[in-house]
Amino acid sequence: MTVNPHLEVVHVFVAALEQLGVRHVCISPGSRSTPLTIAFARHPGFKVWTLLDERSAAYFALGLAQQTRQPVVLLCTSGTAAANYLPAVVEARFSRVPLLVFTADRPKELRAVGANQTIDQVNLYGSHVKWSLEMPTPDGTAELLPHARQMAVRLVTNALSAPQGPVHLNWPFREPLLPPQKRDVESEFIEHVLPMSVAIARKQFTELELQNLADIINRIERVLFIVGPQFDQNLAEPLLQIALKLKIPILADPLSQLRAVAQTSDLQYIIDHYDSLLRHQELVEAKFLTQWKPELVIRLGQMPVSKVLGAYLAKLRGVRQLAIDDASEWRDPIFGATDVWQTDPVLLLQALNRIVPEREESLFAANWRALNEQIADCQRKAIDAIEGQMRDQFSREQTFAMPSLLFEGRIFLELAHLLPPHTTLYVGNSMPVRDLDSFFGKINKPMFILGNRGASGIDGVVSSALGASAGHTNGPTVLVIGDISFFHDLNGLLAAKQYRIDLTVILVHNDGGGIFSFLPQATQDDVFPYFETPHGLEFQSVITMYQGVYKQISDWETFRREMTRSIAEGGLRVLELRTNRELNVLMHRKVFQTCREELLP
Amino acid sequence: MTVNPHLEVVHVFVAALEQLGVRHVCISPGSRSTPLTIAFARHPGFKVWTLLDERSAAYFALGLAQQTRQPVVLLCTSGTAAANYLPAVVEARFSRVPLLVFTADRPKELRAVGANQTIDQVNLYGSHVKWSLEMPTPDGTAELLPHARQMAVRLVTNALSAPQGPVHLNWPFREPLLPPQKRDVESEFIEHVLPMSVAIARKQFTELELQNLADIINRIERVLFIVGPQFDQNLAEPLLQIALKLKIPILADPLSQLRAVAQTSDLQYIIDHYDSLLRHQELVEAKFLTQWKPELVIRLGQMPVSKVLGAYLAKLRGVRQLAIDDASEWRDPIFGATDVWQTDPVLLLQALNRIVPEREESLFAANWRALNEQIADCQRKAIDAIEGQMRDQFSREQTFAMPSLLFEGRIFLELAHLLPPHTTLYVGNSMPVRDLDSFFGKINKPMFILGNRGASGIDGVVSSALGASAGHTNGPTVLVIGDISFFHDLNGLLAAKQYRIDLTVILVHNDGGGIFSFLPQATQDDVFPYFETPHGLEFQSVITMYQGVYKQISDWETFRREMTRSIAEGGLRVLELRTNRELNVLMHRKVFQTCREELLP
Repeated sequence: MTVNPHLEVVHVFVAALEQLGVRHVCISPGSRSTPLTIAFARHPGFKVWTLLDERSAAYFALGLAQQTRQPVVLLCTSGTAAANYLPAVVEARFSRVPLLVFTADRPKELRAVGANQTIDQVNLYGSHVKWSLEMPTPDGTAELLPHARQMAVRLVTNALSAPQGPVHLNWPFREPLLPPQKRDVESEFIEHVLPMSVAIARKQFTELELQNLADIINRIERVLFIVGPQFDQNLAEPLLQIALKLKIPILADPLSQLRAVAQTSDLQYIIDHYDSLLRHQELVEAKFLTQWKPELVIRLGQMPVSKVLGAYLAKLRGVRQLAIDDASEWRDPIFGATDVWQTDPVLLLQALNRIVPEREESLFAANWRALNEQIADCQRKAIDAIEGQMRDQFSREQTFAMPSLLFEGRIFLELAHLLPPHTTLYVGNSMPVRDLDSFFGKINKPMFILGNRGASGIDGVVSSALGASAGHTNGPTVLVIGDISFFHDLNGLLAAKQYRIDLTVILVHNDGGGIFSFLPQATQDDVFPYFETPHGLEFQSVITMYQGVYKQISDWETFRREMTRSIAEGGLRVLELRTNRELNVLMHRKVFQTCREELLP
Repeated sequence: MTVNPHLEVVHVFVAALEQLGVRHVCISPGSRSTPLTIAFARHPGFKVWTLLDERSAAYFALGLAQQTRQPVVLLCTSGTAAANYLPAVVEARFSRVPLLVFTADRPKELRAVGANQTIDQVNLYGSHVKWSLEMPTPDGTAELLPHARQMAVRLVTNALSAPQGPVHLNWPFREPLLPPQKRDVESEFIEHVLPMSVAIARKQFTELELQNLADIINRIERVLFIVGPQFDQNLAEPLLQIALKLKIPILADPLSQLRAVAQTSDLQYIIDHYDSLLRHQELVEAKFLTQWKPELVIRLGQMPVSKVLGAYLAKLRGVRQLAIDDASEWRDPIFGATDVWQTDPVLLLQALNRIVPEREESLFAANWRALNEQIADCQRKAIDAIEGQMRDQFSREQTFAMPSLLFEGRIFLELAHLLPPHTTLYVGNSMPVRDLDSFFGKINKPMFILGNRGASGIDGVVSSALGASAGHTNGPTVLVIGDISFFHDLNGLLAAKQYRIDLTVILVHNDGGGIFSFLPQATQDDVFPYFETPHGLEFQSVITMYQGVYKQISDWETFRREMTRSIAEGGLRVLELRTNRELNVLMHRKVFQTCREELLP
């Protein structure tokens, strides 16, 4: 077979990536990418995942990178294959996940001349990658070997620098596409001979600067932490410490990695029911915007999931708001930030802990804590009561077809207790993440709670969860997802079959876009079908096609039993909860209403 | 419910599109796109298709536009939804299909500040749309009404001008998202009051210019037409006429709309077996590159599918090559074009027909015709013989598990005869389109033969075929597709269920990327699994989920019977042919080898 000797460069490139700690490579089969595919496949340092659908492959890589906190390689051939990466690249950009996106291409001379499977891949991902580069076509020029090595280092460094994110390399290859065997390549640049490394320092203030910044916080009594989605599990410890020392309530988004933390942590300052509290319009007007109004809000992470929290923040005009972010991209769609501290959040909190003095609890903080516990209690009771009422009502009415009375929010109440420590809980967008916010209370049990909140798409969630599971070594992975989102990425399930990846999927099936029933569009009867879109799909057969186990769940007893069993047995298991869109809206409103009345100021 | 009065502008925009002849709108549900969704849904002039997966939706719109030759609207919400359109947009750009891509967006003030579901949608499709524009956020400014009307006209004009293609409009909307009822809008710009129209002239030469150009062709004896993929069914008539008059052989790609044409057409100059002929290395060297070498090659359409034809063209150095295209984007990856005529091909051929004189047939043309008939005959016989030999051999060897001996190429030999007139035949990339090229001979029966040859992706073929069927009013639609490509777009099948679209799918299932078995990668045993990727999927259950009928086909008798039945009964029907990758390669080689020997120069 004809070998292309110029392709020795791919071995240099791949060896450099291995030296820099890259371990996972997700390849979608194709011809033009042959040189890199072969180089990765023949290098013992990589775990190669072969994934047919590029859209799913890219989300799988995203989940793997979220879990492993290392850059993951994506590799595909030229043409629309590369275009299929865009959704996950967008998500990675906004959720700051390091991806190394390699697209093979025709050489320059075959662009814009009508060559087969040739599109315009240069800057294909636009502003949604941090860096994009085109390699020279391998042609035997000696400099291309050290150049490739340097580009490998540069790509990894770029992807890992704050803000982490995706980078793109477009690599043109001329035929023939078979690279030489690595053993036949006499290159001083291939591994061991010239080992390589990258060390990336994080931004931190000097002692003097820190003291000035600490003074700002120390001087203020009514301070509130608000932590949105973020993946760093090291944030919890220093943040909880400083909150305890200064008695600062932390409004902790469900994806902040602050709701399910180590056994030993003191969670009393974690406010997990702010979403329910801030739905209480009268309470907000009478208290949270007047005598309990904060003087300083300190924000970390992405914008929180909760819409009512966003609305509350927007009303805090005149309140100093501090945004802490390690990049110039702090997330502030309500334009509230008055102070921006560009620094690594974990290093900052650790340093502040060393210098801030302990202080007494203010009435402000005590109130937040008390109300939070009160509404958490109320909510638990209200859910039981309302499910009971519904059951009574429907059995009284002897409805011919008894609708499912499972309250979607209860799933998360149950999960907080059912899931073992070190579970990775992946949560779909639209309703699941909102229910997670409202109903998954804080718990002393470490978990990694993930979602695609960069662009909040519903399109690649199955694959992301499978990727997260593939990179997860010390616990189960559980996905909660709605039926539209599950449908969107059914193709992702092939990876579970191919690689026997463990994943328990809790499929909340209400036959349509349930979230629309909560929106104003639901009032427009004539056009509402264009939003809710019932599809009538029964997923059992397709789950079976991917060798998954399917269970339909119609009561919480069975749910608990099947969850325990699923986690114990592993594999792909889908527990489907059929719910009713209209009743679900009604139950949500009743739960919030009941607790609103109990808390009336 | 709160209505946003500024949103009256969407009614002006939508009314203008209707006046300009736009009829089909493909909407993927979402919240931010509510104003346009409601305006389209409430306007009686549109057929609205609600399609959940944006990637499939975009390919569905592409197929619809290929079939109807009219611009089709795509509408989605903000975020990764818009990113999912990219693959089909790329395909539309290179295959010149008019699409109007509308992406709803957050208003400008919510960009780059971490707002939910907000990405960078401005120029999201880069160079893969012909034109991209962002609308002003509707804010009640009076000029925005005539502006929206003008932008509608501009978009349609752009999409329909040569080269046709996709255009993109990003439309920011502020909440509230409910538009006023059209009847409540007192706008002089909404329909009827100010009717609108667009007329687009095509490029054509003056009589004087034409005469000069005609002289070039007249003076040359050995002329060859080469027509690649193109969608204009009006090309056949003038091209066949001029070929008959000047005795010019036409090497007609299977997607050139020249292989299955009207009953009355004289097809003697259509060369449909050039791919098999030009595989005959000795014949090429001894004849086609010497005494039968053309003096002028006239090329129309995209680059043909056949690789051997491409290789032959590349060897025609020193031969004048004329590229006719209505845009500056003539397709010439072999850099052979010496003369470029930028004009509408159909108008040119019609005009030339009027002025070129009839002439005698050259030996050159007679040879092409004779050899073409000879190899067509031989091929038919060889396929029968080889299938028979294989059957004998395997039954002699009493193999425990008799592999499928169906020869994939035979599908197209059968289809040419089985399909009724006015069938739309959609053909998947990778192997099906190559087998179509080799084995679907010319026939006097009008059909529309389509594929995604712009970027030759395998990712959206099911949806494209369903879109083509949805726009097809006077005949059946049949899709031939491989298993990897079918898997890639399984989600597309939902449209068939939702809208009861008729489609017969011939699924060629050889459990993997069959084309790789023909490539050099197949010689690299250790890494070949990274290319062939068997997935072991049994599609029956998922077809049933989408309410399709599944049939497994194991002999040609059954194939013929089930094809006839499927076309008669309609609905979604999948005929699966299990084939064997290795045997298939072997049989292909034997067929070509047999006829090569018979034709030895």
